[in-house]
Amino acid sequence: MEKWRRSERMVAMTKFLLENPRQLFTLGYFSELFHSAKSSISEDLTIIRETLQAMGEGTLETIPGAAGGVKYIPISNPEKESEFLDNLSQRLADPQRILPGGYLYMTDIIYDSNIIAKLGNIFFTRFIQHEPDYIVTVETKGIPLALMTAKAFNKPLVIIRADSRVTEGSALSINYVSGSSKKIGTMSLARRALPTDSKVIIIDDFMKAGGTARGMVDLMKEFKAEVLGIGVLMDTLEPQEKLIDNYLGLLELVELDEKNKRVIIRKKVENHV
Amino acid sequence: MEKWRRSERMVAMTKFLLENPRQLFTLGYFSELFHSAKSSISEDLTIIRETLQAMGEGTLETIPGAAGGVKYIPISNPEKESEFLDNLSQRLADPQRILPGGYLYMTDIIYDSNIIAKLGNIFFTRFIQHEPDYIVTVETKGIPLALMTAKAFNKPLVIIRADSRVTEGSALSINYVSGSSKKIGTMSLARRALPTDSKVIIIDDFMKAGGTARGMVDLMKEFKAEVLGIGVLMDTLEPQEKLIDNYLGLLELVELDEKNKRVIIRKKVENHV
Repeated sequence: MEKWRRSERMVAMTKFLLENPRQLFTLGYFSELFHSAKSSISEDLTIIRETLQAMGEGTLETIPGAAGGVKYIPISNPEKESEFLDNLSQRLADPQRILPGGYLYMTDIIYDSNIIAKLGNIFFTRFIQHEPDYIVTVETKGIPLALMTAKAFNKPLVIIRADSRVTEGSALSINYVSGSSKKIGTMSLARRALPTDSKVIIIDDFMKAGGTARGMVDLMKEFKAEVLGIGVLMDTLEPQEKLIDNYLGLLELVELDEKNKRVIIRKKVENHV
Repeated sequence: MEKWRRSERMVAMTKFLLENPRQLFTLGYFSELFHSAKSSISEDLTIIRETLQAMGEGTLETIPGAAGGVKYIPISNPEKESEFLDNLSQRLADPQRILPGGYLYMTDIIYDSNIIAKLGNIFFTRFIQHEPDYIVTVETKGIPLALMTAKAFNKPLVIIRADSRVTEGSALSINYVSGSSKKIGTMSLARRALPTDSKVIIIDDFMKAGGTARGMVDLMKEFKAEVLGIGVLMDTLEPQEKLIDNYLGLLELVELDEKNKRVIIRKKVENHV
Protein backbone atom coordinates (compact mmCIF):
# COMPACT_ATOMS: atom_id res chain seq x y z
CA MET A 1 0.00 0.00 0.00
CA GLU A 2 1.44 3.34 -0.96
CA LYS A 3 -1.07 6.12 -0.43
CA TRP A 4 -3.87 4.87 1.73
CA ARG A 5 -7.50 5.59 0.94
CA ARG A 6 -9.66 7.05 3.68
CA SER A 7 -11.64 3.83 4.11
CA GLU A 8 -8.39 1.91 4.60
CA ARG A 9 -7.01 4.48 7.01
CA MET A 10 -10.24 4.20 9.01
CA VAL A 11 -9.73 0.48 9.53
CA ALA A 12 -6.05 0.79 10.41
CA MET A 13 -6.42 3.78 12.73
CA THR A 14 -9.39 2.25 14.51
CA LYS A 15 -7.35 -0.90 15.11
CA PHE A 16 -4.30 1.00 16.39
CA LEU A 17 -6.36 3.19 18.68
CA LEU A 18 -8.63 0.48 20.11
CA GLU A 19 -5.80 -1.92 20.78
CA ASN A 20 -3.79 0.73 22.62
CA PRO A 21 -6.19 2.59 24.90
CA ARG A 22 -4.90 5.82 26.38
CA GLN A 23 -1.77 5.73 24.27
CA LEU A 24 -0.96 8.98 22.49
CA PHE A 25 -0.66 8.83 18.71
CA THR A 26 0.54 12.02 17.04
CA LEU A 27 -0.92 13.32 13.80
CA GLY A 28 2.61 13.17 12.42
CA TYR A 29 2.84 9.46 13.17
CA PHE A 30 -0.35 8.64 11.30
CA SER A 31 0.49 11.11 8.54
CA GLU A 32 3.81 9.39 7.86
CA LEU A 33 2.43 5.88 8.24
CA PHE A 34 -0.36 6.47 5.75
CA HIS A 35 1.44 8.90 3.42
CA SER A 36 -1.40 11.33 3.96
CA ALA A 37 -1.61 15.02 4.82
CA LYS A 38 -2.12 15.92 8.45
CA SER A 39 -5.31 17.71 7.48
CA SER A 40 -6.74 14.45 6.10
CA ILE A 41 -5.68 12.56 9.22
CA SER A 42 -7.33 15.21 11.33
CA GLU A 43 -10.58 14.75 9.39
CA ASP A 44 -10.27 10.98 9.77
CA LEU A 45 -9.98 11.32 13.52
CA THR A 46 -13.09 13.48 13.68
CA ILE A 47 -15.03 10.77 11.86
CA ILE A 48 -13.67 8.12 14.22
CA ARG A 49 -14.57 10.17 17.29
CA GLU A 50 -18.08 10.91 16.07
CA THR A 51 -18.70 7.29 15.09
CA LEU A 52 -17.48 5.96 18.45
CA GLN A 53 -19.68 8.44 20.25
CA ALA A 54 -22.69 7.51 18.11
CA MET A 55 -22.04 3.85 18.98
CA GLY A 56 -22.03 4.86 22.62
CA GLU A 57 -18.76 3.22 23.56
CA GLY A 58 -15.43 4.91 23.77
CA THR A 59 -14.25 8.24 22.45
CA LEU A 60 -11.12 9.98 21.26
CA GLU A 61 -9.37 12.59 23.34
CA THR A 62 -7.46 15.21 21.42
CA ILE A 63 -4.35 16.71 22.96
CA PRO A 64 -3.54 20.00 21.26
CA GLY A 65 -0.14 21.50 20.63
CA ALA A 66 3.19 20.41 19.20
CA ALA A 67 3.45 17.33 21.43
CA GLY A 68 -0.22 16.66 20.92
CA GLY A 69 -2.16 13.93 19.23
CA VAL A 70 -5.01 11.64 19.95
CA LYS A 71 -5.87 8.88 22.42
CA TYR A 72 -8.60 6.28 22.53
CA ILE A 73 -10.54 6.50 25.79
CA PRO A 74 -12.54 3.31 26.44
CA ILE A 75 -15.23 5.13 28.37
CA SER A 76 -18.52 3.33 28.77
CA ASN A 77 -21.88 4.87 28.04
CA PRO A 78 -24.10 5.24 31.15
CA GLU A 79 -27.20 3.76 29.51
CA LYS A 80 -25.42 0.77 28.00
CA GLU A 81 -23.59 0.25 31.26
CA SER A 82 -26.79 0.26 33.24
CA GLU A 83 -28.45 -2.21 30.89
CA PHE A 84 -25.38 -4.46 30.96
CA LEU A 85 -25.27 -4.50 34.76
CA ASP A 86 -29.00 -5.23 34.99
CA ASN A 87 -28.54 -8.15 32.68
CA LEU A 88 -25.56 -9.39 34.67
CA SER A 89 -27.51 -9.13 37.95
CA GLN A 90 -30.24 -11.23 36.45
CA ARG A 91 -27.84 -13.90 35.25
CA LEU A 92 -26.14 -14.04 38.64
CA ALA A 93 -29.40 -14.20 40.59
CA ASP A 94 -30.15 -17.67 39.22
CA PRO A 95 -30.92 -19.96 42.22
CA GLN A 96 -28.95 -22.74 40.52
CA ARG A 97 -25.87 -20.70 41.32
CA ILE A 98 -26.30 -21.28 45.06
CA LEU A 99 -23.47 -23.41 46.39
CA PRO A 100 -23.32 -25.33 49.68
CA GLY A 101 -22.22 -22.96 52.42
CA GLY A 102 -24.15 -20.03 51.02
CA TYR A 103 -21.72 -19.14 48.26
CA LEU A 104 -22.71 -17.90 44.84
CA TYR A 105 -21.16 -19.56 41.78
CA MET A 106 -19.75 -16.73 39.68
CA THR A 107 -16.66 -18.13 38.00
CA ASP A 108 -18.25 -18.74 34.60
CA ILE A 109 -19.09 -15.03 34.49
CA ILE A 110 -15.87 -13.62 35.90
CA TYR A 111 -13.69 -15.78 33.64
CA ASP A 112 -15.64 -14.81 30.50
CA SER A 113 -13.41 -12.51 28.50
CA ASN A 114 -16.26 -10.61 26.82
CA ILE A 115 -18.05 -9.86 30.08
CA ILE A 116 -14.95 -8.84 31.98
CA ALA A 117 -13.71 -6.69 29.10
CA LYS A 118 -16.91 -4.66 29.54
CA LEU A 119 -16.50 -4.63 33.32
CA GLY A 120 -12.92 -3.46 32.91
CA ASN A 121 -14.16 -0.51 30.85
CA ILE A 122 -16.80 0.21 33.48
CA PHE A 123 -14.22 0.32 36.29
CA PHE A 124 -12.04 2.50 34.08
CA THR A 125 -14.95 4.86 33.53
CA ARG A 126 -15.84 5.04 37.23
CA PHE A 127 -12.23 5.80 38.12
CA ILE A 128 -11.56 8.01 35.12
CA GLN A 129 -10.48 10.96 37.25
CA HIS A 130 -7.54 8.93 38.54
CA GLU A 131 -4.13 8.27 37.06
CA PRO A 132 -2.97 4.98 38.57
CA ASP A 133 0.46 3.55 37.85
CA TYR A 134 -0.72 0.00 38.57
CA ILE A 135 -3.90 -2.01 38.98
CA VAL A 136 -3.62 -4.33 41.98
CA THR A 137 -5.54 -7.47 42.88
CA VAL A 138 -5.08 -10.58 45.01
CA GLU A 139 -5.19 -14.07 43.55
CA THR A 140 -7.27 -15.78 42.19
CA LYS A 141 -10.79 -14.96 41.11
CA GLY A 142 -10.31 -11.23 40.71
CA ILE A 143 -7.37 -11.59 38.32
CA PRO A 144 -9.24 -11.59 34.98
CA LEU A 145 -11.31 -8.59 36.06
CA ALA A 146 -8.25 -6.70 37.27
CA LEU A 147 -6.38 -7.53 34.08
CA MET A 148 -9.14 -6.11 31.92
CA THR A 149 -9.25 -2.99 34.08
CA ALA A 150 -5.47 -2.72 33.67
CA LYS A 151 -5.94 -3.07 29.91
CA ALA A 152 -8.47 -0.23 29.83
CA PHE A 153 -6.09 1.98 31.80
CA ASN A 154 -3.17 0.66 29.72
CA LYS A 155 -1.25 0.09 32.94
CA PRO A 156 0.43 -3.02 34.33
CA LEU A 157 -1.28 -5.47 36.63
CA VAL A 158 0.13 -6.47 40.01
CA ILE A 159 -1.06 -9.69 41.61
CA ILE A 160 -0.71 -10.14 45.36
CA ARG A 161 -0.16 -13.76 46.32
CA ALA A 162 -2.53 -15.22 48.88
CA ASP A 163 0.27 -17.07 50.66
CA SER A 164 3.98 -16.75 51.03
CA ARG A 165 5.27 -19.32 48.54
CA VAL A 166 6.57 -16.48 46.43
CA THR A 167 9.59 -17.24 44.28
CA GLU A 168 10.17 -13.70 43.13
CA GLY A 169 12.91 -12.58 45.46
CA SER A 170 12.38 -10.66 48.67
CA ALA A 171 8.76 -10.05 49.45
CA LEU A 172 6.65 -8.13 51.92
CA SER A 173 4.00 -10.16 53.70
CA ILE A 174 1.18 -9.24 56.00
CA ASN A 175 -1.35 -11.19 57.97
CA TYR A 176 -4.96 -10.21 57.66
CA VAL A 177 -8.20 -11.36 59.19
CA SER A 178 -10.91 -12.41 56.83
CA GLY A 179 -13.80 -10.27 58.03
CA SER A 180 -16.47 -12.89 57.43
CA SER A 181 -14.85 -16.16 58.46
CA LYS A 182 -12.46 -14.64 61.02
CA LYS A 183 -9.66 -16.76 59.64
CA ILE A 184 -6.17 -15.39 59.54
CA GLY A 185 -4.58 -15.31 56.11
CA THR A 186 -1.28 -14.18 54.69
CA MET A 187 -0.73 -12.15 51.59
CA SER A 188 2.58 -11.23 50.05
CA LEU A 189 4.03 -9.27 47.22
CA ALA A 190 7.54 -9.31 45.82
CA ARG A 191 9.39 -6.07 46.45
CA ARG A 192 10.27 -5.61 42.83
CA ALA A 193 6.66 -6.07 41.71
CA LEU A 194 5.70 -2.58 42.87
CA PRO A 195 8.01 0.45 43.12
CA THR A 196 7.53 2.49 46.28
CA ASP A 197 5.33 5.60 46.09
CA SER A 198 3.20 4.16 43.28
CA LYS A 199 -0.41 5.16 42.76
CA VAL A 200 -2.71 2.15 42.57
CA ILE A 201 -6.30 1.11 42.07
CA ILE A 202 -7.39 -2.13 43.76
CA ILE A 203 -9.84 -4.40 41.92
CA ASP A 204 -11.47 -7.57 43.23
CA ASP A 205 -14.46 -9.71 42.36
CA PHE A 206 -16.25 -9.93 45.67
CA MET A 207 -16.42 -8.26 49.06
CA LYS A 208 -18.24 -9.52 52.10
CA ALA A 209 -16.82 -7.91 55.24
CA GLY A 210 -13.89 -6.33 53.43
CA GLY A 211 -11.09 -8.18 55.23
CA THR A 212 -9.25 -9.03 52.05
CA ALA A 213 -9.56 -5.49 50.74
CA ARG A 214 -8.37 -4.18 54.12
CA GLY A 215 -5.38 -6.54 53.85
CA MET A 216 -4.55 -5.23 50.39
CA VAL A 217 -4.76 -1.64 51.59
CA ASP A 218 -2.46 -2.46 54.50
CA LEU A 219 0.01 -4.21 52.24
CA MET A 220 -0.04 -1.18 49.93
CA LYS A 221 0.98 0.97 52.91
CA GLU A 222 4.07 -1.21 53.32
CA PHE A 223 4.98 -0.26 49.74
CA LYS A 224 4.17 3.41 50.46
CA ALA A 225 1.62 3.16 47.66
CA GLU A 226 -1.27 5.56 47.40
CA VAL A 227 -4.58 3.74 46.96
CA LEU A 228 -6.63 5.94 44.62
CA GLY A 229 -9.65 3.69 44.63
CA ILE A 230 -11.02 0.22 45.33
CA GLY A 231 -13.48 -1.42 42.99
CA VAL A 232 -15.34 -4.69 43.47
CA LEU A 233 -17.78 -6.35 41.14
CA MET A 234 -20.10 -7.44 43.93
CA ASP A 235 -20.43 -6.72 47.61
CA THR A 236 -22.93 -8.01 50.13
CA LEU A 237 -25.61 -6.07 51.97
CA GLU A 238 -24.60 -7.81 55.21
CA PRO A 239 -22.51 -6.99 57.13
CA GLN A 240 -23.30 -3.35 56.42
CA GLU A 241 -20.24 -2.29 58.33
CA LYS A 242 -17.27 -3.14 56.13
CA LEU A 243 -13.64 -3.15 57.18
CA ILE A 244 -12.92 -0.43 54.64
CA ASP A 245 -14.84 2.77 54.13
CA ASN A 246 -14.34 3.91 50.61
CA TYR A 247 -14.88 1.53 47.78
CA LEU A 248 -16.97 1.22 44.69
CA GLY A 249 -19.20 -1.81 44.21
CA LEU A 250 -21.11 -2.39 40.98
CA LEU A 251 -23.57 -5.03 42.19
CA GLU A 252 -24.90 -5.89 45.61
CA LEU A 253 -25.85 -9.33 46.89
CA VAL A 254 -28.91 -8.42 48.92
CA GLU A 255 -29.95 -11.93 49.87
CA LEU A 256 -28.78 -15.47 49.35
CA ASP A 257 -31.24 -17.86 50.96
CA GLU A 258 -29.83 -21.35 50.62
CA LYS A 259 -32.87 -23.05 52.11
CA ASN A 260 -35.51 -21.32 50.02
CA LYS A 261 -33.30 -21.17 46.94
CA ARG A 262 -33.54 -17.45 46.53
CA VAL A 263 -30.92 -14.95 45.36
CA ILE A 264 -31.49 -11.23 45.19
CA ILE A 265 -28.91 -9.05 43.50
CA ARG A 266 -29.27 -5.41 42.67
CA LYS A 267 -27.26 -2.91 40.75
CA LYS A 268 -25.78 -0.34 43.07
CA VAL A 269 -26.82 3.14 42.16
CA GLU A 270 -25.22 5.15 44.87
CA ASN A 271 -21.58 4.46 45.42
CA HIS A 272 -19.34 5.14 48.35
CA VAL A 273 -16.78 6.98 46.28
CA MET B 1 -27.10 8.62 12.40
CA GLU B 2 -29.52 7.48 9.73
CA LYS B 3 -27.66 6.26 6.68
CA TRP B 4 -24.05 5.65 7.54
CA ARG B 5 -21.23 6.79 5.31
CA ARG B 6 -18.61 4.24 4.32
CA SER B 7 -15.93 5.87 6.49
CA GLU B 8 -18.25 5.64 9.50
CA ARG B 9 -19.18 2.04 8.75
CA MET B 10 -15.47 1.21 8.55
CA VAL B 11 -14.90 2.45 12.09
CA ALA B 12 -17.96 0.72 13.53
CA MET B 13 -17.46 -2.60 11.75
CA THR B 14 -13.77 -2.71 12.62
CA LYS B 15 -14.69 -2.16 16.26
CA PHE B 16 -17.40 -4.85 16.26
CA LEU B 17 -15.20 -7.38 14.54
CA LEU B 18 -12.02 -6.78 16.54
CA GLU B 19 -13.80 -6.83 19.88
CA ASN B 20 -15.51 -10.12 19.07
CA PRO B 21 -12.95 -12.41 17.50
CA ARG B 22 -14.29 -15.52 15.77
CA GLN B 23 -17.88 -14.36 16.19
CA LEU B 24 -20.00 -14.59 13.07
CA PHE B 25 -21.61 -11.37 11.86
CA THR B 26 -24.02 -11.74 8.96
CA LEU B 27 -24.19 -9.29 6.08
CA GLY B 28 -27.84 -8.84 6.98
CA TYR B 29 -26.94 -7.76 10.49
CA PHE B 30 -24.57 -5.06 9.30
CA SER B 31 -26.89 -4.09 6.47
CA GLU B 32 -29.75 -3.44 8.87
CA LEU B 33 -27.57 -1.77 11.49
CA PHE B 34 -26.10 0.70 9.02
CA HIS B 35 -29.14 1.09 6.74
CA SER B 36 -26.92 0.12 3.82
CA ALA B 37 -27.22 -2.33 0.95
CA LYS B 38 -25.64 -5.74 1.40
CA SER B 39 -23.52 -5.05 -1.67
CA SER B 40 -22.01 -1.99 0.04
CA ILE B 41 -21.39 -3.98 3.23
CA SER B 42 -19.73 -6.67 1.18
CA GLU B 43 -17.40 -4.08 -0.36
CA ASP B 44 -16.70 -2.66 3.10
CA LEU B 45 -15.66 -6.07 4.34
CA THR B 46 -13.29 -6.54 1.42
CA ILE B 47 -11.58 -3.27 2.33
CA ILE B 48 -11.35 -4.31 5.99
CA ARG B 49 -9.88 -7.69 5.09
CA GLU B 50 -7.32 -6.22 2.71
CA THR B 51 -6.29 -3.53 5.18
CA LEU B 52 -5.86 -6.01 8.03
CA GLN B 53 -3.76 -8.24 5.81
CA ALA B 54 -1.64 -5.29 4.68
CA MET B 55 -1.10 -4.43 8.35
CA GLY B 56 0.01 -8.02 8.88
CA GLU B 57 -2.23 -8.75 11.83
CA GLY B 58 -5.55 -10.51 11.69
CA THR B 59 -7.83 -11.22 8.81
CA LEU B 60 -11.49 -11.75 8.01
CA GLU B 61 -12.89 -15.16 7.25
CA THR B 62 -15.92 -15.20 4.97
CA ILE B 63 -18.50 -17.94 5.45
CA PRO B 64 -20.59 -18.23 2.27
CA GLY B 65 -24.26 -19.17 2.01
CA ALA B 66 -27.52 -18.20 3.62
CA ALA B 67 -26.23 -18.68 7.18
CA GLY B 68 -22.95 -17.09 6.21
CA GLY B 69 -21.22 -13.93 7.16
CA VAL B 70 -17.86 -12.79 8.35
CA LYS B 71 -15.57 -13.38 11.34
CA TYR B 72 -12.46 -11.63 12.56
CA ILE B 73 -9.57 -14.08 12.93
CA PRO B 74 -6.79 -12.65 15.15
CA ILE B 75 -4.07 -14.56 13.35
CA SER B 76 -0.55 -13.29 13.83
CA ASN B 77 1.87 -12.67 11.01
CA PRO B 78 4.95 -15.00 11.07
CA GLU B 79 7.47 -12.19 10.58
CA LYS B 80 5.97 -9.88 13.18
CA GLU B 81 5.63 -12.81 15.56
CA SER B 82 9.26 -13.78 15.12
CA GLU B 83 10.44 -10.22 15.72
CA PHE B 84 8.21 -9.89 18.77
CA LEU B 85 9.50 -13.14 20.31
CA ASP B 86 13.13 -12.15 19.64
CA ASN B 87 12.52 -8.88 21.39
CA LEU B 88 10.83 -10.65 24.31
CA SER B 89 13.74 -13.12 24.64
CA GLN B 90 16.12 -10.23 24.83
CA ARG B 91 14.11 -8.46 27.51
CA LEU B 92 13.84 -11.66 29.56
CA ALA B 93 17.53 -12.49 29.25
CA ASP B 94 18.50 -9.49 31.40
CA PRO B 95 20.80 -10.77 34.20
CA GLN B 96 19.03 -8.43 36.61
CA ARG B 97 16.07 -10.78 36.33
CA ILE B 98 17.96 -13.57 38.11
CA LEU B 99 16.36 -14.32 41.46
CA PRO B 100 17.86 -16.21 44.39
CA GLY B 101 17.34 -19.92 43.83
CA GLY B 102 17.92 -19.72 40.11
CA TYR B 103 14.51 -18.36 39.19
CA LEU B 104 13.88 -15.81 36.46
CA TYR B 105 11.72 -12.78 37.25
CA MET B 106 9.06 -12.65 34.56
CA THR B 107 5.95 -11.25 36.24
CA ASP B 108 6.30 -7.72 34.86
CA ILE B 109 6.19 -9.23 31.38
CA ILE B 110 3.48 -11.82 31.89
CA TYR B 111 1.17 -9.35 33.66
CA ASP B 112 1.56 -6.70 30.93
CA SER B 113 -1.71 -6.61 29.03
CA ASN B 114 -0.15 -5.46 25.74
CA ILE B 115 2.47 -8.19 25.69
CA ILE B 116 0.13 -10.98 26.69
CA ALA B 117 -2.53 -9.85 24.21
CA LYS B 118 0.07 -10.47 21.49
CA LEU B 119 1.08 -13.79 23.06
CA GLY B 120 -2.57 -14.82 23.22
CA ASN B 121 -2.86 -14.21 19.47
CA ILE B 122 0.33 -16.20 18.91
CA PHE B 123 -1.01 -19.20 20.84
CA PHE B 124 -4.28 -18.88 18.95
CA THR B 125 -2.37 -18.89 15.65
CA ARG B 126 -0.27 -21.90 16.59
CA PHE B 127 -3.38 -23.83 17.61
CA ILE B 128 -5.57 -22.49 14.83
CA GLN B 129 -6.44 -25.97 13.53
CA HIS B 130 -8.16 -26.74 16.85
CA GLU B 131 -11.65 -25.92 18.07
CA PRO B 132 -11.37 -25.90 21.86
CA ASP B 133 -14.43 -25.37 24.06
CA TYR B 134 -12.29 -24.01 26.92
CA ILE B 135 -8.84 -22.67 27.62
CA VAL B 136 -7.48 -24.17 30.84
CA THR B 137 -4.70 -23.00 33.14
CA VAL B 138 -3.63 -23.41 36.75
CA GLU B 139 -3.28 -20.48 39.12
CA THR B 140 -1.49 -18.05 39.29
CA LYS B 141 1.09 -16.72 36.90
CA GLY B 142 -0.33 -18.29 33.76
CA ILE B 143 -3.78 -16.75 34.22
CA PRO B 144 -3.30 -13.50 32.26
CA LEU B 145 -1.71 -15.39 29.36
CA ALA B 146 -4.46 -18.01 29.34
CA LEU B 147 -7.13 -15.32 29.51
CA MET B 148 -5.76 -13.54 26.47
CA THR B 149 -5.57 -16.84 24.60
CA ALA B 150 -9.19 -17.48 25.60
CA LYS B 151 -10.04 -14.02 24.30
CA ALA B 152 -8.43 -14.75 20.92
CA PHE B 153 -10.37 -18.02 20.68
CA ASN B 154 -13.47 -16.27 22.07
CA LYS B 155 -13.89 -19.17 24.48
CA PRO B 156 -14.22 -19.22 28.26
CA LEU B 157 -11.28 -19.61 30.61
CA VAL B 158 -11.11 -22.32 33.27
CA ILE B 159 -8.71 -21.86 36.17
CA ILE B 160 -7.57 -24.91 38.11
CA ARG B 161 -6.88 -24.11 41.76
CA ALA B 162 -3.48 -25.04 43.10
CA ASP B 163 -4.94 -26.30 46.36
CA SER B 164 -8.23 -27.61 47.60
CA ARG B 165 -9.72 -24.53 49.27
CA VAL B 166 -12.31 -24.39 46.56
CA THR B 167 -15.66 -22.89 47.47
CA GLU B 168 -17.39 -23.75 44.25
CA GLY B 169 -19.29 -26.86 45.20
CA SER B 170 -18.06 -30.40 44.62
CA ALA B 171 -14.65 -30.55 43.08
CA LEU B 172 -12.25 -33.08 41.63
CA SER B 173 -8.76 -33.02 43.06
CA ILE B 174 -5.57 -34.79 42.12
CA ASN B 175 -2.13 -34.96 43.61
CA TYR B 176 0.79 -34.35 41.34
CA VAL B 177 4.54 -34.39 41.72
CA SER B 178 6.37 -31.27 40.72
CA GLY B 179 8.94 -32.68 38.32
CA SER B 180 11.72 -30.32 39.32
CA SER B 181 11.36 -30.00 43.09
CA LYS B 182 9.80 -33.44 43.65
CA LYS B 183 7.25 -31.85 45.94
CA ILE B 184 3.72 -33.20 46.01
CA GLY B 185 1.04 -30.69 45.22
CA THR B 186 -2.72 -30.76 44.91
CA MET B 187 -4.81 -29.21 42.20
CA SER B 188 -8.57 -29.10 42.04
CA LEU B 189 -11.35 -27.96 39.84
CA ALA B 190 -15.03 -27.54 40.61
CA ARG B 191 -17.18 -30.06 38.80
CA ARG B 192 -19.39 -27.40 37.33
CA ALA B 193 -16.45 -25.42 35.98
CA LEU B 194 -15.96 -27.86 33.10
CA PRO B 195 -18.63 -30.04 31.47
CA THR B 196 -17.50 -33.61 30.77
CA ASP B 197 -16.25 -34.43 27.26
CA SER B 198 -15.05 -30.88 26.63
CA LYS B 199 -12.20 -30.12 24.26
CA VAL B 200 -9.54 -27.98 25.91
CA ILE B 201 -6.23 -26.25 25.28
CA ILE B 202 -3.92 -25.89 28.27
CA ILE B 203 -1.86 -22.70 28.59
CA ASP B 204 0.81 -21.92 31.19
CA ASP B 205 3.68 -19.49 31.58
CA PHE B 206 6.58 -21.80 32.37
CA MET B 207 7.58 -25.45 32.21
CA LYS B 208 10.61 -27.01 33.78
CA ALA B 209 10.12 -30.76 34.12
CA GLY B 210 6.46 -30.65 33.17
CA GLY B 211 5.00 -31.91 36.45
CA THR B 212 2.37 -29.20 36.62
CA ALA B 213 1.36 -29.73 32.99
CA ARG B 214 1.23 -33.49 33.64
CA GLY B 215 -1.04 -32.81 36.62
CA MET B 216 -3.35 -30.67 34.49
CA VAL B 217 -3.53 -33.35 31.82
CA ASP B 218 -4.36 -35.96 34.48
CA LEU B 219 -7.02 -33.74 35.99
CA MET B 220 -8.51 -33.23 32.53
CA LYS B 221 -8.83 -37.02 32.22
CA GLU B 222 -10.97 -37.01 35.35
CA PHE B 223 -13.30 -34.64 33.51
CA LYS B 224 -13.13 -36.83 30.37
CA ALA B 225 -11.81 -33.77 28.58
CA GLU B 226 -9.81 -34.05 25.39
CA VAL B 227 -6.59 -32.04 25.54
CA LEU B 228 -6.08 -30.67 22.03
CA GLY B 229 -2.84 -28.92 22.83
CA ILE B 230 -0.59 -27.55 25.55
CA GLY B 231 1.16 -24.21 25.15
CA VAL B 232 3.75 -22.63 27.43
CA LEU B 233 5.49 -19.32 27.05
CA MET B 234 8.84 -20.67 28.20
CA ASP B 235 10.32 -24.06 28.87
CA THR B 236 13.80 -25.02 30.03
CA LEU B 237 16.46 -26.91 28.11
CA GLU B 238 17.11 -29.05 31.21
CA PRO B 239 15.74 -31.55 31.99
CA GLN B 240 15.38 -32.51 28.35
CA GLU B 241 13.07 -35.32 29.31
CA LYS B 242 9.78 -33.70 30.26
CA LEU B 243 6.88 -35.40 32.00
CA ILE B 244 4.70 -34.71 28.98
CA ASP B 245 5.53 -35.38 25.36
CA ASN B 246 3.52 -33.05 23.23
CA TYR B 247 3.52 -29.41 23.97
CA LEU B 248 4.34 -26.16 22.30
CA GLY B 249 6.86 -23.80 23.86
CA LEU B 250 7.53 -20.36 22.42
CA LEU B 251 10.79 -19.57 24.21
CA GLU B 252 13.45 -21.75 25.78
CA LEU B 253 15.54 -20.99 28.83
CA VAL B 254 18.85 -22.45 27.73
CA GLU B 255 20.92 -21.35 30.68
CA LEU B 256 20.48 -19.47 33.91
CA ASP B 257 23.83 -19.12 35.64
CA GLU B 258 23.21 -17.48 38.99
CA LYS B 259 26.88 -17.25 39.89
CA ASN B 260 28.12 -15.71 36.66
CA LYS B 261 24.96 -13.67 36.15
CA ARG B 262 24.20 -15.05 32.76
CA VAL B 263 20.85 -15.84 31.15
CA ILE B 264 20.46 -17.37 27.71
CA ILE B 265 17.01 -17.55 26.17
CA ARG B 266 16.21 -18.53 22.62
CA LYS B 267 13.14 -18.54 20.52
CA LYS B 268 12.06 -22.08 19.76
CA VAL B 269 11.92 -22.76 16.07
CA GLU B 270 11.04 -26.41 16.05
CA ASN B 271 8.09 -27.34 18.17
CA HIS B 272 7.00 -30.64 19.59
CA VAL B 273 3.53 -30.39 18.14
